[in-house]
Amino acid sequence: MKEYSKSKLNRVKRGQIRATYDVEKINTILDAGFIGFVSYVFEGKAISIPMAYGRKENKIYLHGSQANRMLLSLLEAKEMSMTVMHLDALVLARSGFHHSVNYRSATLFGPVKKIEEKAEKEAALLCFMDHMMPGRWDGVREMNQEEFDRTLVVEFTIETAAAKIRDVGVVDEKEDIGLPIWAGLMPLKQTAEYPIPDKDLPKDMEIPKHILDYYNANK
Amino acid sequence: MKEYSKSKLNRVKRGQIRATYDVEKINTILDAGFIGFVSYVFEGKAISIPMAYGRKENKIYLHGSQANRMLLSLLEAKEMSMTVMHLDALVLARSGFHHSVNYRSATLFGPVKKIEEKAEKEAALLCFMDHMMPGRWDGVREMNQEEFDRTLVVEFTIETAAAKIRDVGVVDEKEDIGLPIWAGLMPLKQTAEYPIPDKDLPKDMEIPKHILDYYNANK
Repeated sequence: MKEYSKSKLNRVKRGQIRATYDVEKINTILDAGFIGFVSYVFEGKAISIPMAYGRKENKIYLHGSQANRMLLSLLEAKEMSMTVMHLDALVLARSGFHHSVNYRSATLFGPVKKIEEKAEKEAALLCFMDHMMPGRWDGVREMNQEEFDRTLVVEFTIETAAAKIRDVGVVDEKEDIGLPIWAGLMPLKQTAEYPIPDKDLPKDMEIPKHILDYYNANK
Repeated sequence: MKEYSKSKLNRVKRGQIRATYDVEKINTILDAGFIGFVSYVFEGKAISIPMAYGRKENKIYLHGSQANRMLLSLLEAKEMSMTVMHLDALVLARSGFHHSVNYRSATLFGPVKKIEEKAEKEAALLCFMDHMMPGRWDGVREMNQEEFDRTLVVEFTIETAAAKIRDVGVVDEKEDIGLPIWAGLMPLKQTAEYPIPDKDLPKDMEIPKHILDYYNANK
């Protein structure tokens, strides 16, 4: 599949010029972060909760405690939507009306199911950890049976999706261009600061490569 | 009011130790950003869309085109919820199970209404702009009647809310502390880069103080 089919649910109505249904472009947005806003209906009201996720092909993995209200509500509802957004700049125009932000956002829709099978659950947890920080999984203490049993893993299949991207400069009215008003972009991004070791670590323990790699790629 | 009352809707079930209903703490989370995930029910499904907002006391202001599907759906539903989250760190534990993130998030619930009255609408738009970048409003070209009429402003009253904050270090199992595994925090934050002037600005135009102030406070 190259593009998600459009339906009443995912078709972008406003600002269609910024919309995309391209699978690869949407995957790129999903892989640039690991926090999604998962939405579900609770007693007739829409609630959205931020959750960490992992992605493998058209599957999104969420996990939590076996008693997690949201995950249990999702499983009951049998479907969910998730929105991921990256804020890239404030767009400072000459008029208030044309102020905007540059961003990349994707909203996904599809069915959810609980993962029961052991190998599948392990693979989902690995995918999840790898998505947050590549290489971390190999360095940590192996999961024990109790931890494994206490963890609920939910698989969400991306059935349809839409993304919106604004990545251009200021768009002002022609007659405003000459006004003595500063206009331009204030670029924004999420950055990492130098890792802070846990107080109980031996003083001489080196920071492993996967952590320094993450820091260097995000500082 | 010092604290939001707890109901089935906003009571935090999991991780209560990290929950707060304190009005000032929740306002601090809201004022640390300007993008909220607004959730509503569309044809029985929950959808969440990122939107810029302004806050004044217990009011949240959203705006968009008069034809904005989400704002119109909100007005029809007469109520909404909004979630704001700031990601502060990856919490890298010795076991996969105890990996976490440090964050501040708030979820708000309440009624919405359209603002019709001119002075109220102007005040809401000023509040909105001021929330995104203090001082910007005074520097821009005044809004004309057509722009004013084409803008839909929605007022959301925070009736109840809950926040969750995790701001501590790694919490590992006692028996894992001595393992030769690096553990600690990878701090994350949203930062600004140096402002990029619009291509049509005169070359010698200075960057105004409110923009440099923003950059210096967020770089």
